[in-house]
Amino acid sequence: MFSHKYLQSFTEQVFLKLGCPIKDAKLAAQVLISADLRGIDSHGIARLNGYVRLTDLKRLNPNPEIKIIHETPSTAVVDGDKGLGLVVTPYAMEIAIQKADKVGTGWVAVKNSNHFGIAAYHAMLALEKDMIGIVMTHAGPLVAPTFSQDKMLGTNPICVAVPSGVEPPFIMDLATTTAAYGKLEILQRKNLSTPDGWVQDKDGKASNDANAVKNGGALLPLGGDRERGSHKGYALGAWVDIFCGVLSGANYGPWVPPFATAGFMNSSEKLVGEGTGHFVGAMRIDAFRKAEDFKNNMDNWIKTFRAAKPVNGHEKVLIPGDPEREIEKERLQSGIPVLPSVIESLKILSDRFEIEFDEKNKK
Amino acid sequence: MFSHKYLQSFTEQVFLKLGCPIKDAKLAAQVLISADLRGIDSHGIARLNGYVRLTDLKRLNPNPEIKIIHETPSTAVVDGDKGLGLVVTPYAMEIAIQKADKVGTGWVAVKNSNHFGIAAYHAMLALEKDMIGIVMTHAGPLVAPTFSQDKMLGTNPICVAVPSGVEPPFIMDLATTTAAYGKLEILQRKNLSTPDGWVQDKDGKASNDANAVKNGGALLPLGGDRERGSHKGYALGAWVDIFCGVLSGANYGPWVPPFATAGFMNSSEKLVGEGTGHFVGAMRIDAFRKAEDFKNNMDNWIKTFRAAKPVNGHEKVLIPGDPEREIEKERLQSGIPVLPSVIESLKILSDRFEIEFDEKNKK
Repeated sequence: MFSHKYLQSFTEQVFLKLGCPIKDAKLAAQVLISADLRGIDSHGIARLNGYVRLTDLKRLNPNPEIKIIHETPSTAVVDGDKGLGLVVTPYAMEIAIQKADKVGTGWVAVKNSNHFGIAAYHAMLALEKDMIGIVMTHAGPLVAPTFSQDKMLGTNPICVAVPSGVEPPFIMDLATTTAAYGKLEILQRKNLSTPDGWVQDKDGKASNDANAVKNGGALLPLGGDRERGSHKGYALGAWVDIFCGVLSGANYGPWVPPFATAGFMNSSEKLVGEGTGHFVGAMRIDAFRKAEDFKNNMDNWIKTFRAAKPVNGHEKVLIPGDPEREIEKERLQSGIPVLPSVIESLKILSDRFEIEFDEKNKK
Repeated sequence: MFSHKYLQSFTEQVFLKLGCPIKDAKLAAQVLISADLRGIDSHGIARLNGYVRLTDLKRLNPNPEIKIIHETPSTAVVDGDKGLGLVVTPYAMEIAIQKADKVGTGWVAVKNSNHFGIAAYHAMLALEKDMIGIVMTHAGPLVAPTFSQDKMLGTNPICVAVPSGVEPPFIMDLATTTAAYGKLEILQRKNLSTPDGWVQDKDGKASNDANAVKNGGALLPLGGDRERGSHKGYALGAWVDIFCGVLSGANYGPWVPPFATAGFMNSSEKLVGEGTGHFVGAMRIDAFRKAEDFKNNMDNWIKTFRAAKPVNGHEKVLIPGDPEREIEKERLQSGIPVLPSVIESLKILSDRFEIEFDEKNKK
C-alpha cells in the first residue's frame, strides 16, 4: 500500500521530467491518482508508463497550446494540441462551466487530445458549481458492433455527475461494453476465463477466453449478444464516438488512436481527423429549477432507491457512485495497493528520470 | 394490413372526439402512427385505447395550456398542463430548436405530461434543421435496479438522432432495459418463455416467465445481471429518470404514473411531483463545425461501419436506425398489420365515438 500523496508526488515529478509545466504536472497527477483512489486501478498510476511512451512516440505534447477554435454562447470546440487528456479535459470542462454560468448550459467537443484518465474526475468538476457534469470519451478500437467481426469502437464511457443536498452526489461512470478492458486483464493474470457475453473470438464466436481480444477477438458491447440487447450497447458506444470524434473533428471509429499501452494494436496510418476526442457538458441546475428544490428531490431520490427491498443474498441496493466512494474512503485512509508489475514499471521510470521511488514508502 | 393514412385518419377523429383541437389531434395521430410505421407496434395505435382511458380517468387534459415556466438562453422547463405527451413533446422540441438556433444548443425539461409515443419522432424533428436531437422519457415503474426486488424505474428510453449527408441519419432509440415490455407481450401471447436476462420473478430470482412482471416480478436493466453489467443499464435508466423527473419537477422513480393500459399497476396515491416528465435537446451541428464537414464525416462513419466484416451467418452490420427505416419503407407501401385484439379495441372506440371503422379498408 502506498499513500495517494506519495504516488501523486512521484507521478507529478515524472510529468515534470516529460516537460509539462508545473501546473499541468500537478493537475495530471491529481487526475491520474484519483482513478486509483476510486478503485479504477486500470486508469491510474498503472498507465503512467503509457503516457511516457506516448511522449517518446511524439504523439503527446507535454507543453501544448490548448485553444478554442470555434464557439457559440453555449458551445465550443477545443484543439488540445496533442496535450495530455488529463489536462486538456479540465480546461474544456472549465469552458463548459463558464458558458453554463452565462447561458444555462455549456457543451465542448475536444479534438487532438489523448487519453484523459477517468471520466468521473472531469464530470465532478461541475458539482461544486451546482451544475450537472456530463463527460464522454472515445478510445482505440477494441469492441465489435453487433454482428461484426471487426473491432470498430473503443470502450467509450459515459459519465453523468448530478449534485444532491445532504446525500452524496449521483455519479454514473460506465464503459458502454459489458466489461471494461481492465477487468479482462485481471482475469488474464489469474488465468481465469470470462463470464458469458464479455468477448468474442477472432471469428466472431462467443468466447470465454480472457485473452480473446489479444488474439484477434473483440470486447462485446453492453448486453453481450443480440438477444440480450448488445445492439443497444453498440448504439451507445457509437453515440459516444460520434460526439467525441465527428462533432470535434478528431478521428472516429476504427481510426481512433490506441493508448500507448495497448501494444497489440497498430495505430492506423491514414487518419480521418486529429487525435483523440472528448465531449463534455455542464448544466446549471438552477437553469431548470431552484437549486434547493432540485437538491431536496435528489436527496429523496437517493434515499428512496437505497430503501428498495434487496434481493435475498444482497445487503442493499446501491446508488451509482457508491462503490467508488466506498473504495475512496478506504484508500484515503489505508493507502492504494499497487501490483508488483506496476511497481516494476515505476522503478524503471525512477531510474530513467532519476526520481527517487522508495518501496519503504509502502505502508 | 391497413394503410397508415386510414389508421391516422381514424386516430385523428378519436382525438377530436376526446376534445383535442384539430391541430393537436392531427399531430397526435401522426406521432402515434409513426410508431406503427417504424415497427414499434407496442407504441402505436395499440395504445390509442389507453389515451382514451387516461382521459376518462381525468389524468389527461385534451386541450391543455402548455407553457414555459422557467428559462435561460439555452434551457427551459415546460409545464404540459396534463396534455398528451404526443403534443407536449413536439412543443418542447420546438423551443429547444429555437434556443439552439440562437445560442447553439437548447435543452427543455418537461413536467405534467403523459406518454409521448416513440422518442425517435421527437428527436428527428431536429434533423431537418441540421441539428442533433436528443430525447428521453421516463415511465411507470416496471424495472428492478440491480440487487433490488422492488420495481423503481420505467423502461426509460434514450434517443439520439444525428444528421448525415447522402446517407440516412443515425437514429439510436433504445429502452434502457434488456428488452422492451412490448417484446414480453408478444411472448405472452404466444405462450413462449423469455431469453435469459430479461425478467426476474417476485422474489428477485432470474426467470424465463414472460408473465413474471404481471406476477410481481420485474423487467431487468440492460445487461440482465450484475456479471453482464446490469448495474450499467440501471444507471442509464436512473440518469433518464433524474433528467425527466427531478430536473423538471415531475414525479420520479416509483412515483412516475403508469400508462393507462398497464392495468396491473396501481397509481401511487402520494405523489412527489407533477405528472410524467421528458427531457429534450437540440444541438446545431454548425455550433461545433461547418455543417458540410460534419455531414461528410458522418457519411464516412456510416459507410465504414456498414463495411465492417459481418460474423458468419449474418448478412451485414447495421447502423442504429436501419431496422426501423426498412420496416417503414415496407409499411408505407404494403400497409400496417394490426392484431385482432387491437382491431377489437378500435371497434369499441368506433361504436363509442360513432366514427366509422370499416375492416373493408384492410388491404
